[in-house]
Amino acid sequence: MSIENMIQTMARDAKAASRGLRSLGRNQKDDALLRMAGKLLEHKETIFAENRKDLSAAGDAGLSPAMLDRLTLNEAVIAAMADGLKEVAALPDPVGESPGMWKRPNGLLVGRIRIPLGVIGFIFESRPNVTVDAAALCLKSGNAVILKGGSEAIHSNMALGKLLTEALHEAGIPEKAVQVIPTTERAAVNALISLDDEVDVIIPRGGEGLIRFVAEHSRVPVLKHYKGVCHIYVDQSASVKMAKAICFNSKVQRPGVCNALETLLVHEDAASDFLPEMAQQYEAAGVEIRGCPRTLALVPGAVAATESDWPAEFLDLVLAVKVVGSMDEALDHIEAYGSQHTEAIITNDYERSQRFLAQVDSSVVLVNASTRFNDGSQLGLGAEIGINTSKLHAFGPMGLEELTTTKFVVYGQGQIRE
Amino acid sequence: MSIENMIQTMARDAKAASRGLRSLGRNQKDDALLRMAGKLLEHKETIFAENRKDLSAAGDAGLSPAMLDRLTLNEAVIAAMADGLKEVAALPDPVGESPGMWKRPNGLLVGRIRIPLGVIGFIFESRPNVTVDAAALCLKSGNAVILKGGSEAIHSNMALGKLLTEALHEAGIPEKAVQVIPTTERAAVNALISLDDEVDVIIPRGGEGLIRFVAEHSRVPVLKHYKGVCHIYVDQSASVKMAKAICFNSKVQRPGVCNALETLLVHEDAASDFLPEMAQQYEAAGVEIRGCPRTLALVPGAVAATESDWPAEFLDLVLAVKVVGSMDEALDHIEAYGSQHTEAIITNDYERSQRFLAQVDSSVVLVNASTRFNDGSQLGLGAEIGINTSKLHAFGPMGLEELTTTKFVVYGQGQIRE
Repeated sequence: MSIENMIQTMARDAKAASRGLRSLGRNQKDDALLRMAGKLLEHKETIFAENRKDLSAAGDAGLSPAMLDRLTLNEAVIAAMADGLKEVAALPDPVGESPGMWKRPNGLLVGRIRIPLGVIGFIFESRPNVTVDAAALCLKSGNAVILKGGSEAIHSNMALGKLLTEALHEAGIPEKAVQVIPTTERAAVNALISLDDEVDVIIPRGGEGLIRFVAEHSRVPVLKHYKGVCHIYVDQSASVKMAKAICFNSKVQRPGVCNALETLLVHEDAASDFLPEMAQQYEAAGVEIRGCPRTLALVPGAVAATESDWPAEFLDLVLAVKVVGSMDEALDHIEAYGSQHTEAIITNDYERSQRFLAQVDSSVVLVNASTRFNDGSQLGLGAEIGINTSKLHAFGPMGLEELTTTKFVVYGQGQIRE
Repeated sequence: MSIENMIQTMARDAKAASRGLRSLGRNQKDDALLRMAGKLLEHKETIFAENRKDLSAAGDAGLSPAMLDRLTLNEAVIAAMADGLKEVAALPDPVGESPGMWKRPNGLLVGRIRIPLGVIGFIFESRPNVTVDAAALCLKSGNAVILKGGSEAIHSNMALGKLLTEALHEAGIPEKAVQVIPTTERAAVNALISLDDEVDVIIPRGGEGLIRFVAEHSRVPVLKHYKGVCHIYVDQSASVKMAKAICFNSKVQRPGVCNALETLLVHEDAASDFLPEMAQQYEAAGVEIRGCPRTLALVPGAVAATESDWPAEFLDLVLAVKVVGSMDEALDHIEAYGSQHTEAIITNDYERSQRFLAQVDSSVVLVNASTRFNDGSQLGLGAEIGINTSKLHAFGPMGLEELTTTKFVVYGQGQIRE
């Protein structure tokens, strides 16, 4: 069977399974999630054995120690996956909920009911545990999912997928609700993103190259973000102490993720009090500062920023810093170079806090808090499958509710249109 | 200037204008809408003169009388456009509203705020009054819009666009908030749907060919429906009187629209009481019935349905009819041939009414009411810019709220991520 035919069969099976998932009760879904957790713990030696095949091939291929570390499944990772499954089981089921109904003058009772999206194609390059996390969120939200992981994790992903399928079977849920694509061929991605009759949404997670490829070639709607070029604007009214704590946390706590700070904008009236101290703290943590000319005058250790630094997502201990003459200049800079991901203002000025919240066109805008809070779990969504910086469907972190849509239901008593 | 460059300039202008629209208050937007209404009435002779150019060219090109009728702008159409503008002005402004905020354990106050999508590309083939309706809904929801109408209406659309722009100018709103593409070249569509950095969403309205072309080639997300193959299932418990009234209304009241009935499914236990009477009523109204073998046995005037009739959107006084042995057979038929647009059940059985609502995967599902109610205005959304049968963003009719998205705002007091 060709890869195209295989993927089409998988997609049709997923669509058929999704029909059964629509009306599953919460208890049955949670039962499956808890069985999945049990399976992972019970069969961890099998998982380790398959994972060793991936690690061995990756070692032969010369993957970096950091990559090998990401690929490794050990006791701690298995335990974390099992805990994640239990956490998703504990979250409310969004399916079937209604944000409300209303009565029309002719007596029709009209309302929206939350329903699953249907079939989700999830394409990722990350650690194999994403297989389990994504499957859990899709199942709980009533969606069938087709998972295409990175080629370096194929044995691990297939082993995990097999256990998930067994748990579905034992819980009486269609097994094709969770399917792992059993090939490393890129053609599988091409096939999956072309099936707009069977697949309702594609969610790609990984490097910008993968995501751009999917976005440009998909005939299925794509929810994605390319990168997070996150800004903090330190206003002249900011508490220097608070600004230092938040800017340090946003850049240093986990520099390799999309909600880490990449460009710091400082009002000129705050610069001399704030920047030299801040820079010392950054430099002690190994952060390289790339500054505008006014920053260079205040921060001796900084190097001159070039035009390519302003739109850069460093994902590393590197920070671009610019002194601005006004908040409007900061807003213009964010509009020009930002990625509509996460932006924060540090201020004690009421009017400017409100204006920043209103005018910054990003999925999460914060006042006096770290950019690192753009995360489904941190914002209270329970868990997230990714962050979307396109405006359509769900702008920002996507939790269970964002994996659903609503349909209209209408209760009539014989009404016809006049 | 090439068409590509012209469209890119328009899109950049729209994006710049959309920044100004984000924080416009309701009063200023409503002022512009009312000025637009005034402009149309004041300058109707200019509109008629431009419309005559289109009508003359259309007559030379041999357009059908029905097409010429759709193209004609007269006193009544101008009055209806002005009334439509006033109605949109009277609707609530969705921008800036919040469905609610919540407090996190660390004290962060988190909420969603409704914001405009940004720039909307609206591509349509319909009457020139759609130019005004779409501009009104986009402006009220804070979006900039680029309008590409049918080539046969180019003079009318440009005349309307010029008046809308004047009203924006007088209301102190960026004029580029509403732009009509001043060319009939198809290359303009190709250019517009490629600008994913400037345009946030494309909404195509027109024939299936146009919509498929846009959906397949757009790099910008598309909200659309291809067609409405709407079904009614008449259950064995249905009131024959109610079923007849609703099935007649759904098919006959306006057969050329997407929410008109195309296939009638009848439970075998209801068929002999219901179908012969229903068919008489249909035949008296000129409806051609294409039936399954069991329908043919009950309806002498019917012709035999072929496989191509089941997925057909007739948009005419033609109806496919099938007798089914169970509701599950009806559900399977809808799943196989439906377009996820509008489906209704006529029943007096509680359990089956609930199961039909839950299991039919369509944007609007009705019990004991006409399919013709799938319409933003009829459902209480105030007005609609179109109906979306993709699950993403807004499934079903799209009103003002569906032309917005939400971003997260976070009020902190110095919180950092542990």
